[in-house]
Amino acid sequence: MNSIVYADNAATTQLDRDALEAMMPWLLDEFGNASQPYAFSRKPKKALAEARETIAACIGALPAEIFFTSGGTESDNWAIKGSALGDPDRGALITSAFEHHAVLRSCRAVERLGCPVAYMRPSPDGYITPEILSKYMAVNTRLVSVMLVNNEIGSIQPIKELCQAAHAHGALFHTDAVQAVGHLKIDVKELGVDMLSASAHKFNGPKGVGFLFIRKGAALQAYVHGGAQESGRRAGTENIASIAGMAAALKKNCDALEENAGHVLSMERKLLERLDRAGIVYSRNGGCTTLPGLVSLSFDGEDGEAILHRMDLMGISISTGSACDGANAEISHVLQAIGLDSSLAKGTIRISLGKNNTEDDVERIAAAMIKILKK
Amino acid sequence: MNSIVYADNAATTQLDRDALEAMMPWLLDEFGNASQPYAFSRKPKKALAEARETIAACIGALPAEIFFTSGGTESDNWAIKGSALGDPDRGALITSAFEHHAVLRSCRAVERLGCPVAYMRPSPDGYITPEILSKYMAVNTRLVSVMLVNNEIGSIQPIKELCQAAHAHGALFHTDAVQAVGHLKIDVKELGVDMLSASAHKFNGPKGVGFLFIRKGAALQAYVHGGAQESGRRAGTENIASIAGMAAALKKNCDALEENAGHVLSMERKLLERLDRAGIVYSRNGGCTTLPGLVSLSFDGEDGEAILHRMDLMGISISTGSACDGANAEISHVLQAIGLDSSLAKGTIRISLGKNNTEDDVERIAAAMIKILKK
Repeated sequence: MNSIVYADNAATTQLDRDALEAMMPWLLDEFGNASQPYAFSRKPKKALAEARETIAACIGALPAEIFFTSGGTESDNWAIKGSALGDPDRGALITSAFEHHAVLRSCRAVERLGCPVAYMRPSPDGYITPEILSKYMAVNTRLVSVMLVNNEIGSIQPIKELCQAAHAHGALFHTDAVQAVGHLKIDVKELGVDMLSASAHKFNGPKGVGFLFIRKGAALQAYVHGGAQESGRRAGTENIASIAGMAAALKKNCDALEENAGHVLSMERKLLERLDRAGIVYSRNGGCTTLPGLVSLSFDGEDGEAILHRMDLMGISISTGSACDGANAEISHVLQAIGLDSSLAKGTIRISLGKNNTEDDVERIAAAMIKILKK
Repeated sequence: MNSIVYADNAATTQLDRDALEAMMPWLLDEFGNASQPYAFSRKPKKALAEARETIAACIGALPAEIFFTSGGTESDNWAIKGSALGDPDRGALITSAFEHHAVLRSCRAVERLGCPVAYMRPSPDGYITPEILSKYMAVNTRLVSVMLVNNEIGSIQPIKELCQAAHAHGALFHTDAVQAVGHLKIDVKELGVDMLSASAHKFNGPKGVGFLFIRKGAALQAYVHGGAQESGRRAGTENIASIAGMAAALKKNCDALEENAGHVLSMERKLLERLDRAGIVYSRNGGCTTLPGLVSLSFDGEDGEAILHRMDLMGISISTGSACDGANAEISHVLQAIGLDSSLAKGTIRISLGKNNTEDDVERIAAAMIKILKK
């Protein structure tokens, strides 16, 4: 039997061997608690500081602006809930209707506590423009949260411009950059964001770890309370091994950013070219500025679930949408938000290629799709 | 130079090699997202189910009552905050003044949202008795939270009786069992608790992972919002490797519970016997029922910090109190809560022995203490 072709890198990625090597010392021998004052904790403490510096350098932040979390979901929960529970006179939030559920359901949670949230509808091609945002901005807007890359359709949002619009009204800006970090060049100073969420397992780091960038001086209440770790802003014994693995993975991906992007973009083009040549009719979601390698395709009248399962039987792992909604059979909220015709929405699949995919993988994916979809 | 003697197992423990082996397949090769529907996710999904069964069996719970978290701190935050945000007519919480900060600071956070919290003062030997609790119980008590083992002085609380007292008033009961799980025999049915927090790195599992037991039917709101993982009650891509490692570590410790307890208890006795024989005067905190291996000693007129640092120079890692307060120089809130005389409190150290410690370690610890403290 052929090996599996894994084409769901937007759901999770393979841990890089270098990242695993960076983890190992902290798993077995140097297991000390980084918050203790004795000599045995010196090395883990140093590793923690170095990981913070590495990650900060990768996104143009200061080390003191990087706060380690258990992943992108926690980072998003923190940014939303920590903002909503601040100044009650300036307590309104604005987000988009096609955010990840980690943002959307955190927003629903703060609404239940009395904090108003507005949900912007993106354009049909999948963008929140400054013009859309300007219609929602109000004097009591505390936070605007818009994702950097949509995880289902790949559209890259104009964060810098959205950020300027939010700041012009005195609001803070958060971006869920889980699908972008390690794949796109990101400079938080250039973008101007006040908070940015990231998740290690989306950029070949380990699962169960991530970070939240919080600009120095940005007002954000704590979310996880307890010990004095992370400058007293995020409690819990430091997960050194995973943090070291995350830093190694991010640095490796950032060092090879253009190379990796070129590789996945060339595979993406080959895939579409193969489908075109076979006369397969599709519409691609996400407009003109999408994350390299993330391909959302809709086939009118087809069943995305059925395509996924037939691909699976051929040894190819793809998705219909977000992994976090794997259990749901309904039409994804992202496709609903962009107003995609339900016949197209039902026939949608997401192929997400990563740096470990090969040209051969793409040929197998294309051949399988043609076999399934050729009339 | 001699190797380090690590005697701070209450702060964190060394990852068991068997636990590491249980983690490895899910780190490198079987990296699939457990929530996706394709074949490549079948093995991680199965590993997740097996880990849940293993952990449930270790504490007498049902698999569906185990919810994976990022550690003890998150579990405590969830139990406290998820309870406080429930029924507003029954919104009061009762806890003790010597809980871990993960509980105490979560309580402070819900107080700021308008939920009243009462903080019971333990007895001078370090116990919350049913008599103490009965003075605080009220018709609007929603949750009582008392730790199973105090992390600084080791006193084992009468959870079963406290639980009965809480239930008699219709309140739910949560226990922070972070210092107990994997070290004491725990049966949640026998104890009667509705929620129980645990942290893997305290029982030779990896850092950054833990669980919350939630009794079937116990009303608890979600704390981390997002995807539909953990039956829709705790969002975030499943950290399979760490979860598998946690299950392996817990099973191994539970299988050798009596053996390990006997080993650390014999070392504890040897340590105290050596000090006694050398005429070192100390008072031991935590009364008569303490966790085997956890020894909190106060030396009148001495400086605990200074003892810690001199021990450290001799290659021995001990603590003055909670690792989570490593940065704080003030007297620990636990010693304040039991009303320890400040001269004794300042001269307090915590030695916590684990299954990996040896009789030789204890001889070195005793010799160092005698050298430092002998008048």
